[in-house]
Amino acid sequence: MVERVVPEAGRKRRRPTKAGVVLSEGMIIDTALRMIEEHGSEGLSARRLGRALGADPSAVYRYFHSMDDLLLAMADELITRVTREWHSTGDWRADLHRWGLSAHAEYMKYPQAAQITAARITGSTAELAGVELILAALRGAGFPDHLAVLGYRLFITQMLSYAARDGAGKLVANRRADIDRWKNTYAHASAETYPNIAAVAELLEQHDGSSTYPLALRLLLGTIQAMLEEKHSSTRPSDI
Amino acid sequence: MVERVVPEAGRKRRRPTKAGVVLSEGMIIDTALRMIEEHGSEGLSARRLGRALGADPSAVYRYFHSMDDLLLAMADELITRVTREWHSTGDWRADLHRWGLSAHAEYMKYPQAAQITAARITGSTAELAGVELILAALRGAGFPDHLAVLGYRLFITQMLSYAARDGAGKLVANRRADIDRWKNTYAHASAETYPNIAAVAELLEQHDGSSTYPLALRLLLGTIQAMLEEKHSSTRPSDI
Repeated sequence: MVERVVPEAGRKRRRPTKAGVVLSEGMIIDTALRMIEEHGSEGLSARRLGRALGADPSAVYRYFHSMDDLLLAMADELITRVTREWHSTGDWRADLHRWGLSAHAEYMKYPQAAQITAARITGSTAELAGVELILAALRGAGFPDHLAVLGYRLFITQMLSYAARDGAGKLVANRRADIDRWKNTYAHASAETYPNIAAVAELLEQHDGSSTYPLALRLLLGTIQAMLEEKHSSTRPSDI
Repeated sequence: MVERVVPEAGRKRRRPTKAGVVLSEGMIIDTALRMIEEHGSEGLSARRLGRALGADPSAVYRYFHSMDDLLLAMADELITRVTREWHSTGDWRADLHRWGLSAHAEYMKYPQAAQITAARITGSTAELAGVELILAALRGAGFPDHLAVLGYRLFITQMLSYAARDGAGKLVANRRADIDRWKNTYAHASAETYPNIAAVAELLEQHDGSSTYPLALRLLLGTIQAMLEEKHSSTRPSDI
C-alpha cells in the first residue's frame, strides 16, 4: 500500500486559505478532476489549482508530494467511485457484466481523467479492494488461480481500453459531424472501387457511434466461461 | 469521400517560406505529428506549427480548412501507415491477426496521435480502403453480411481501444515506477484483508506491464470464428 498523501503532521498549516476555505485532500482531488475535464489534462498545474482553490500555488504540495501523486490520487478517486457500489451476488458472470458496464459508465463521466489514468497503477487500498473483488468473484466460482488472474487481467484491461477510446470520442468537439460523415460516406461509396463496402452499405450506415464495449464485454465473459468449463484440460495462459 | 485539403487553386501562394521551404500537406502533417508527440496534443496550434515550419501562422490554413481538418488528415496519415503493408493471404483469421498486431504497433509509435484520433471518423479514401480490406477478408471467408459488419466493428474498435489505453501507458513519464509499485504492492498484500490477492500473489507479481491486446485479439478472432461456424443458425447481431 502506498502513502500518496502527505501525513497530517507534515503539513505546514491547517488554517483557512485567503478565500476562507480549509483545504482537504478530497477538495483538491475534486477540483483537479473538474479542472482537467474543463481545460484538458495539460491545463492542470499547481498554480491553476491554487487559484481555483483560493490558495497559493504551494498549497497542493502540502497535501501531495508531487503533481504525479495528485494524479494517482485522482485515479484512486475514480476507482473508488467505480467500485463503491459493487456487491457480489454469487454469479460471477452476472457480477462482472454489471461491474464492467458500471465502471465504463463512471469513467465516461470523466473522459479526460479516464484517458490519463487508464494505464496507471496506484497501489492504493482503493485499487487493492477492486482487484480483490474481481479475484474473489472468479476464484469463488471455481476458477483455478492462473485462470482467475488471466480473467481478471482480460476483464480490467478491456474495460479500461474501451473507456480510454470511448472517452476520446466524448472529447471530440463536434462528434455529430463525425457520425454524419460516416453515414454519408459509407452510404454512397463507389461499388466499383469499394465493392464490399457498397454491398453492406445499409448495415454500415446504421452505425450511430455507440460503443461496442457492451457487446465486447459479453463476448469476453463468454470466452472466460469457456475457459472455466475446460479447466480440467492442461490449458495454461501461455497456450491460449 | 471528403476533401480535407484546400484545393491547389485556392491557396494564396506557392512560393518558399521565410526559411526557403516550399510547404506541402505532407510536410505539415508530419510536423504536426512530431509536434504533438513532443508537446502533447494541446500544444498543437497554427502559430507553433507555422514557427516549426518557418512560415507564418496562416500558412496552415492555406492547406487545411481548419485545425480539426488537419487533425483528421493526421488520422488519415496514421491509417495509411497502418494499412499500406496489408495484403490478403486468403486466410481471414491469420490476416486479421497480423493486421491487428501491426496496426497496434504502428499506433504505439504515435501514442498522442493514437489517443486523439482513435475515435475519429475521417471518411477519407485511406479509411475507406482500410474498411474495404477488412470487409473483403470476412465476406470472402463466407461471413454473411451482418456478421461481416459485426466482425469488422468488433475487430477495429478493439484495436483502437487497446491502442488508446496502451498509448496512454506509453505517455506515463515514469512507467517503470508504476510497474515496480504493482510488484511491491501485490507481492506483499495482507492475507487477512486481501485473501484472494495474497493467494495468487506470485501470479500477479509476474505482471510486467505488457499489453493484453495480443491475447484479447486472439480470443476475439476465436469468437468471430465461432460465429461463422454458427452462421446457419438464426443468430443476429442483436441477439449476441
